[in-house]
Amino acid sequence: MLIPRALLFDTFGTIVDWRTSLIDELTAFGLKRGIHADWAALVDAWRGAYVPSIDEVRQGRRPWTKLDDLHRATLDRLVEKFGIIGLSEAELRHINRGWHRLRPWPDSVPGLTRLKQHFIIAPLSNGNVSLLVNMAKYTGLPWDTIFGSDLFHHFKPDRETYLGACELLDLQPEQVMLCAADGQIFWPEDSLHRTAVGIWDLEADEAWDIIATSVENLADQLTDQVTLQGLGTTSKQ
Amino acid sequence: MLIPRALLFDTFGTIVDWRTSLIDELTAFGLKRGIHADWAALVDAWRGAYVPSIDEVRQGRRPWTKLDDLHRATLDRLVEKFGIIGLSEAELRHINRGWHRLRPWPDSVPGLTRLKQHFIIAPLSNGNVSLLVNMAKYTGLPWDTIFGSDLFHHFKPDRETYLGACELLDLQPEQVMLCAADGQIFWPEDSLHRTAVGIWDLEADEAWDIIATSVENLADQLTDQVTLQGLGTTSKQ
Repeated sequence: MLIPRALLFDTFGTIVDWRTSLIDELTAFGLKRGIHADWAALVDAWRGAYVPSIDEVRQGRRPWTKLDDLHRATLDRLVEKFGIIGLSEAELRHINRGWHRLRPWPDSVPGLTRLKQHFIIAPLSNGNVSLLVNMAKYTGLPWDTIFGSDLFHHFKPDRETYLGACELLDLQPEQVMLCAADGQIFWPEDSLHRTAVGIWDLEADEAWDIIATSVENLADQLTDQVTLQGLGTTSKQ
Repeated sequence: MLIPRALLFDTFGTIVDWRTSLIDELTAFGLKRGIHADWAALVDAWRGAYVPSIDEVRQGRRPWTKLDDLHRATLDRLVEKFGIIGLSEAELRHINRGWHRLRPWPDSVPGLTRLKQHFIIAPLSNGNVSLLVNMAKYTGLPWDTIFGSDLFHHFKPDRETYLGACELLDLQPEQVMLCAADGQIFWPEDSLHRTAVGIWDLEADEAWDIIATSVENLADQLTDQVTLQGLGTTSKQ
């Protein structure tokens, strides 16, 4: 296997646990504000609108709109649908920025910290840069840089995102590995490395480079490869 | 003073010592390759071409060209001018990427590490993203994200760079502080914070927010402000 120079990570689901984080935060908010609602259902509906709203932009039915603003439009609709009344603009804004405060899975920070010693690591996410920077500050994710979709004015799986990140890193696609835990990694060219992090049912004919059970297990496997091939670290950290 | 949320740093000169780094590297290269040349003069001429070549782009006389490519065009010219012969393409490319391997001043990493606990920290540099990512990997600069000029297709002091970084961070200019050690901080709006890091002759009428003697001293002064104003950290790190 060709050792990659950079690892680009899917973020929602792969690195952070959006569902539990948002449900916990909204449940606490509801208790404090005395608002009773089915917060779990609201969170699921919120995420459920993710692909359709992104597809509106991808298919040209809506001009470029960053994810924070797509989230907010969906939230405004769901608040009404769930019969939640009396929220101030500041409260709606705070709730919407819950996506900036998602908690990492337990393996994310230790795994990424190890991978950073050998590779450039960055999110390649449909989130916007500010969302991803704030998330990293909040949770201690040790990214080398941040690739948000607003850098490209495209959402994954548009090829402009993957190839745009490669261009900014001055790397060829075959030097870059995509890492995602949802079992649905899209990539624009066969030359781009693919990896899979997490446990799920994989189609046997998928040409994954690595199948890992966690980010820490990915670090184990890639570190083994680096050692086998006698490569040094790219970092003094 | 309004406490900033993000600190954007000038890089060449402020954070890394481009001159000594390049002279040392080229001197070692020359010894190894048996090439005698006035490497210090070459490095000074290389940097001397920086502003003119950037101005060509800024004034529309040259289409957008990233700094690596401007550096390379200058290097090719200087190699000929200094009578250096026999360099391979790989050697020229390696020399040009010396700008990715610049060493930090002694105060840079400890100062930035402390500032990162309270603020978003990023370079806002005329370097391209790959140059700045590689430099950070090489030296351990703990940036939260990287703002290279290729994100904006503009070089400082074009206002698109400063305001582009604010937009990506979803911050107003008055929430962002520019930090530079060259005594020549340009900014597009009076509302942008200015700071000065380093020792030099300052004009008394410059409206600096902070005058610091080092990045560590900047951390001292800003941490005092955070404590005085009773603000928490923005990071768990």
